[in-house]
Parts: sequence; structure tokens; C-alpha cells
Amino acid sequence: MVAARNTQSVSVWARESDVARSIAETHENLHFLPGVKLPTALVADVEIHRAASADVLLVAVPAQALRATLALLPSKSVDAKPVVICAKGIERVSGLLVTEVLKEILPRAVPAILSGPSFAKDVARGAPTAITIAAEHETAMRLQATLGSDTFRPYASSDLTGVALGGAAKNVYAIATGIADGLGLGESARAGLLARSFAELVRLGTAMGAETETLMGLSGLGDLVLTATSRTSRNFSFGLHFGQGASLAMLSSKGHPLAEGVDTAPALVKRARMAGIELPIAETVAAILGGSLQARDAIVRLMSRPLRKE
Amino acid sequence: MVAARNTQSVSVWARESDVARSIAETHENLHFLPGVKLPTALVADVEIHRAASADVLLVAVPAQALRATLALLPSKSVDAKPVVICAKGIERVSGLLVTEVLKEILPRAVPAILSGPSFAKDVARGAPTAITIAAEHETAMRLQATLGSDTFRPYASSDLTGVALGGAAKNVYAIATGIADGLGLGESARAGLLARSFAELVRLGTAMGAETETLMGLSGLGDLVLTATSRTSRNFSFGLHFGQGASLAMLSSKGHPLAEGVDTAPALVKRARMAGIELPIAETVAAILGGSLQARDAIVRLMSRPLRKE
Repeated sequence: MVAARNTQSVSVWARESDVARSIAETHENLHFLPGVKLPTALVADVEIHRAASADVLLVAVPAQALRATLALLPSKSVDAKPVVICAKGIERVSGLLVTEVLKEILPRAVPAILSGPSFAKDVARGAPTAITIAAEHETAMRLQATLGSDTFRPYASSDLTGVALGGAAKNVYAIATGIADGLGLGESARAGLLARSFAELVRLGTAMGAETETLMGLSGLGDLVLTATSRTSRNFSFGLHFGQGASLAMLSSKGHPLAEGVDTAPALVKRARMAGIELPIAETVAAILGGSLQARDAIVRLMSRPLRKE
Repeated sequence: MVAARNTQSVSVWARESDVARSIAETHENLHFLPGVKLPTALVADVEIHRAASADVLLVAVPAQALRATLALLPSKSVDAKPVVICAKGIERVSGLLVTEVLKEILPRAVPAILSGPSFAKDVARGAPTAITIAAEHETAMRLQATLGSDTFRPYASSDLTGVALGGAAKNVYAIATGIADGLGLGESARAGLLARSFAELVRLGTAMGAETETLMGLSGLGDLVLTATSRTSRNFSFGLHFGQGASLAMLSSKGHPLAEGVDTAPALVKRARMAGIELPIAETVAAILGGSLQARDAIVRLMSRPLRKE
């Protein structure tokens, strides 16, 4: 929808043929964005090669499905072409950021990433939204012009690592604050947890070469705040239900939308260990979801660590 | 209540004699915290000299009333004694931080400040809460031990400027996000505004000699997140009603609890100008409250500033 505001033709490839069909026939994504009329300039397709012939590709699939999806693209079709990753997460098997997966699978593409505080429903209804697009300078400027509008404001960055890390980590921390809320610990506890989550993100990001400005910006702190305080967020909502006693199995079953943080929590911990960084909150989330810690004990312990200097 | 958990005797002085009377007679603060049973070790008084004879003083009055309240304390009674400011704001007439007002009025007191994400209702019911206490090292450690408990965790800091500034600024930015919510701009817009508010705080704080760790910590980011996303916050709530069309006069009348940010907005802008720093969001809030800008136009314009690098 954002791209179709500014460009002549946008084609959507969808893995699920019924999603493509519902868009093609009704101009509505009945599965993932029901009730929103899509622009007629937007054409859906189940044939990836046609969509891949576009000037710019945006890849919006779950992080754990990114590798397999990118592998469907003919390497030649993306030669020197911007491929904008819209996935948020860290690959569980490898500990790689989504931008690193892109470089591994399609090294000839021009890598880019779009991330920032933006619920699909806000973007769809034209509510003002500001996000970050990271790529090398020329590409970032071009994407900013291609996707920007009065209500959708992309800010350009060259820090792919910072943007990819912020987008991934926030889902893990949103599960933590969701669990705290589900346990009834109160808003003060949630805010304290969120501030410490941000400190973890900055520690890891700095070690990985991300810029502090990125981590403090829209795609870092901005998205962390949105995701970790709103019930509209899948990850916060997942944590909330988990904290209220729902099981992982129950929450992972059909009907519950994807919570990226479930897979990204252990992946984030893995990546942090590779960088020699400890992340008490992310490690706690991974241990709770892995079944080795009880949620209440673990979160309360996080909140009452020994008194020390901040 | 927090102090009474750890100490033999705590006495509360209150300006309003009916507040002191309700605490003395019913062990409940009927005016400001109804429904909460106060500890019996807590004794209320309308005679400030008796309360001032304690080993540690905590001063919890509105920022604009701080100077007058401190002036009631006999200078001798606070000699080499910790005076912990719990007020959050910047003095409107002078542009001074609350800690600076303390130093001006009671130069012989040992200055300290307590701030951080903590709603009174959460602290009162023993929900886990983590806050920051700033003072010179020995004093901070002593206050940490005096006030700390399993559920109320004070972290020690030596950065009085950073803690005082964070506590003041968050109320101004909470009004901004409240207005955005009142205008119906959506959660994505609010999160974007919050991330940029934090960037403003860091810019000003750095110029004033605050430590980045403080600004990123509980009393900075933590309290900003709590105040700027919760309807329990007086300042967010004020902004929300204002954004929905209520007038400043209506919201300032009796029955509405104090929104510190209303006075602190112009004071923060004044202080930033003294430091040579521009604060687009705080300036917008001050101009809206001052009547020189329309809320909707101003906030939407903030969200759609020209595309540029973040």
C-alpha cells in the first residue's frame, strides 16, 4: 500500500495461494489485514519470478522463513537491485541477523532494511508513522523517495546492523514486559524492565558495531517502546498470555499470530555470546520459553537483583 | 511507607492540615492515596520543625512549590544532613533544576534526589519497583540501604543533574504523547514521538553534563516510558484530554491532579536555550500550552518534518 501510493505498479507475491487469490479477487488481504481495501494498482501473484522482475524488492516474511524465501529468488534477478528486508528477527540456526542472511544467500543484491515503530493497521489507515530505512547512501535516499509520503516518513540510515538488531531484539524484550504484565507486576515494573532492556540492546549493539544513534532512534528505542507496551503487538500479547498461565504449545497453535520473539530469544542469546556479552533479560526470556525457568520466579528475580549502582 | 518498612519512626509533615489530620486519625491519606492503609509507625504532623529533626529528609512537593517549602526549613536543621528531593520539574521563574533550587536555598544540606518509574499506587501495594537515588557516593549508599526492600529497589548514582533533568523532562514529553493520543494519531505515532523525545533529552542532558548512562537508565528512559504511555500518568492524561479538546483552564481547575509538565514545558525550553540547545518537541508543547500553536497542526507537523537522515 505504501509503495502503491507513489509508484505505477506494485506486485505482491505470496507463498500462500489463498492470500494471493483473496488480494487478486477482492483487493483485500482477508488473512492478514481484513477490512482494509487495497489499492487497485496492487496486483497479487503466486509466481515469484514475475514479482522479482520489479526495480525494488521488499521481503516481508517471518525471520525464520527468510532464508528459504530468498533462496526462491533467481540470483540474477536481484543483481545490483535493492532488496529491502522487512523481517524482524535473528535466524535461530545460525545466529545471523536478517541482513546477514541476505548477504549470504544473495550476495549480488544491494542490501537494505526497513524497520521502525509501525503497526500495519496504523500504516494502512494512513496514521502518521516514521520508520528507518538503512542501506548505502544512494540506495537509502532512493528508497526514501520511493516509499515516503505525508503520513509514512522513512528516515535514511547507513547502519544496517543497528537497524536489524533493534528490530530483532525488541520482540524478545516485548515478551519480557508482556510476561511481567501477565503476572500483574504493574506498570512501574514494566517501565523499569523496558529501560533495562534498552540498556542490554545498547550493550550488545555497541559490541556488534551498531551506532548508538540508531539504537536510540526510531528502529531501536522507538520500536522497542511500541512493541513492549501495546497489546496490539503480537510479542507483547504473547508474553501477556504466557504470564497469565497459557502454555507455549497453546500459544503456538493455529489462530495465534506469529510471535517472532519466541525464536529470536535463543538466537539473540546465541549471538550475544558470540560477541561476549551477557543479556540477563533476554537470557531469562529464552530460559522461560525453553522451560528451564518458571516465569514468576524469574521475572521477579530480574526485578530484585542485588542493590548496586545502576 | 517505603521508609517505614525499614526504620523505627517516620514522621510526615503536610502543608495541608486536613491531610495531616486524615493520616494521624485514620492512617490513610484520604486526599492523595485513598484506600491504602498506612503503617502505624508513620506519624503525621503539621509542625515542620519536628519533622525536620529526622536524620534524613525527603521532600515530596510539586516542583513549583519546592523553593517556598525548603525556605520553611531552618538552615541549621539540615546541616550536613541528606535532603532527598522527590519533586520532578524545573522551576519556571529561574529555569533551575530541583537539585539546583535545593543548593541555592539550603547550601549546607547534603543534596540527593530520588526519581524513576514508580506510580504511588504500585509502590504502595508493594509491586516491584526500581528507581534511582543520586547523591555523593556515601550518602547514596546509605539512602539505598535505608529505603531499599525486596520490592522497592533504589539504584545508586552520583549524577544529580541527569536524574533531576530526566524526572523533569519526562512530564513535558508525556504531555506531547498524550496530545498525540488524544488526537487519535495511533500508537505508532506515539512511539515515534517518544523515541524523538528521548533523543531531545539526551541532547540537552549531554550539554548540561549529565551522564548518558543516567539518561538511558531508570530515572531517564524508564520514567519517560512509564509517564508517556500510561493513562495513570497525570501528565499523559492531561495531554490526552487536551488533545481531545479540553481547555487548559478546564484542566487546571480543581479536581484535576497536578500536571507538572505544564509549568515545566516553558522552563525546560528556557533552560535548553541557556545551554544553546533546540528542543522541537518541548518547544511545540510549550507553544501549544501557551496558546500560540494549535495542537493538531503542531503535532502532525512534528511527525511529518522534511525527510532527512535520522
